[in-house]
This record gives sequence, structure tokens and C-alpha cells, in this order.
Amino acid sequence: MEQTELIVKMVKDRWIASLKSCDHLLSILSDEDLLREIAPSKNRGIYLLGHLIAVHDDMIRLLDMGEKQYPSLYEPFLKLPDHPDTPMPSVSELRTFWSEQCNVLNQKFEGLKPEQWLEKHTAVSDEDFVKDPSRNKLNIIITRTSHLQYHIGQMVLLK
Amino acid sequence: MEQTELIVKMVKDRWIASLKSCDHLLSILSDEDLLREIAPSKNRGIYLLGHLIAVHDDMIRLLDMGEKQYPSLYEPFLKLPDHPDTPMPSVSELRTFWSEQCNVLNQKFEGLKPEQWLEKHTAVSDEDFVKDPSRNKLNIIITRTSHLQYHIGQMVLLK
Repeated sequence: MEQTELIVKMVKDRWIASLKSCDHLLSILSDEDLLREIAPSKNRGIYLLGHLIAVHDDMIRLLDMGEKQYPSLYEPFLKLPDHPDTPMPSVSELRTFWSEQCNVLNQKFEGLKPEQWLEKHTAVSDEDFVKDPSRNKLNIIITRTSHLQYHIGQMVLLK
Repeated sequence: MEQTELIVKMVKDRWIASLKSCDHLLSILSDEDLLREIAPSKNRGIYLLGHLIAVHDDMIRLLDMGEKQYPSLYEPFLKLPDHPDTPMPSVSELRTFWSEQCNVLNQKFEGLKPEQWLEKHTAVSDEDFVKDPSRNKLNIIITRTSHLQYHIGQMVLLK
């Protein structure tokens, strides 16, 4: 296997394994668990789940793979901090969004060839990309895997 | 820049940025903060810090870069769950270990050329490595970055 193909596969495998960890965690947490705070006066599980979906939704745009699927999640889960009075979808609805989104992302990611992962993402200009070629699509996966792991480490406290 | 060199740099940059996040967090948490539980009946900050140092210590062996520097941390922070009665170094000593270790790891990592990151790590046999070349040194960095982010997400709750 060619080196670029190998390393791109390693990065994608870590992303997919992280999604699976989150899936497993969601499967053992009840809706009631997810309505609790991860620690006193900290975010609730429902907020973390909605936040992850909103952040992953924005990846579609950054990776130039189409439009956001859940733009209404921006306000309650990215713009605003967690608050019980903020209108937001139910845990059950968010679970459905999460599963559907994982399938959509995996499908879109499969369509990209190794070299295409090294193309620039949409939030960087042509000029800046020449200066720093690490601002590519693969780096979006690398940074979002970090972000996902950070919040899995928090959500696991609801067990 | 050649592709392998570029992607290896991206992976290493994410590792270094994660270490820096942890550094920053440690700089704003007091020793007293680190002696608190991250959530009721969950691990204390001191345990997470010791655990990270113990896990990163084992990377030296896995990456074939020498011997562990802090083998005495295995028992209290890897083998045993967190317990206030377990003998362990003070927060202050662990802070020193953490800083020294970051320097040592960064120095050792700088010595490896991009292609060398794709060589097998020490926990995989030659035979298994042929079957799965992703079991290389770079993957140790990728998985340990995930692990670090997971626990940073927890330690941040002590703020």
C-alpha cells in the first residue's frame, strides 16, 4: 500500500473507531442519563450529543461535501451554552440524527481518494493554503477526532 | 513538501497541540483543584495526571526509543484504580515529571525521520506487521493523542 493511502487510512480508522466508541456509549446510556449533568453545574449529556452533531454537520461544509443537514442545531448547541430553557430536540430525536449523520459522513468519506484528502478545505483561501498545505481536508478529520474524544471522555461520566 | 512528510507533521502537530492544551490546563489548576474528583465518585485530577504520564512513559518503549523513565507510576496509575489510600507522588512531583517528560518525548520525536514513523512499533511482531502495516509508530501517536484528549476533556471539569 502506498504511504499516503496508508496514513490516510490510519487517520480515517481512528475517526471511525471514535464514532464507534461514542455509539457504544450512547447505547448504554438511557435518555434519562443523557438529561443529567456530567458533573455539578457542567453541561448535560443531551447538550454534548447535540454539540457533536452540530460540529460534525459543519464538517460537510468544510470538506466541500454539500450543505449542512441540521442547521437548526447551531443555535442551541454551538452558539448558546447549555440551558434547560433553550428549545432543543429530544434525546430520542438527537439519537436518530446521530445515527443518520454517521452513515452519511461515512458514505461521503468513502468517496474521497487518498490524494483528495490533501486538498484544501473550504475555510482556507488558495493563498493561505499555498503557505500552509497542512490546512487540508485530512486535518479536519484529525482535529475533529480530538474534539470527539474530548467530549466522549466527558459523556462517559454519565455511566 | 513530500506527502508523507506533510501528513506525519500534521499528526505530530496535533499531538504537540494536545500536550500544550494539557500544559495550559495544568497551569490554571491549583494543586488543590487536582486533588478533587472530576465528578462525584469519579477519578481525581491527580490520578488523571499520573495516568497520562504513565501512558506516555510506555510510549518510549513502544516507539523503541529507550526505557521507561517512571516505572513506579505503573502500579498507582495504570494497574490500580484511583484510591486516596494508594501511595503516589505529590501533585507537585507529578507536575515536574509531566514537564520533563514532554521535553524528553519532543526531543526523541524530533530525531525520527518521516519514513521511520511508518516502521513497526515494538508491540507487534514482524509477521503481524506485514499483514497490517498500520501498526506502526505513527499510529502510537495517533491513538495516544485520542487518549490524551479524552482525559483533557475530563480534567477541564476541575476548572
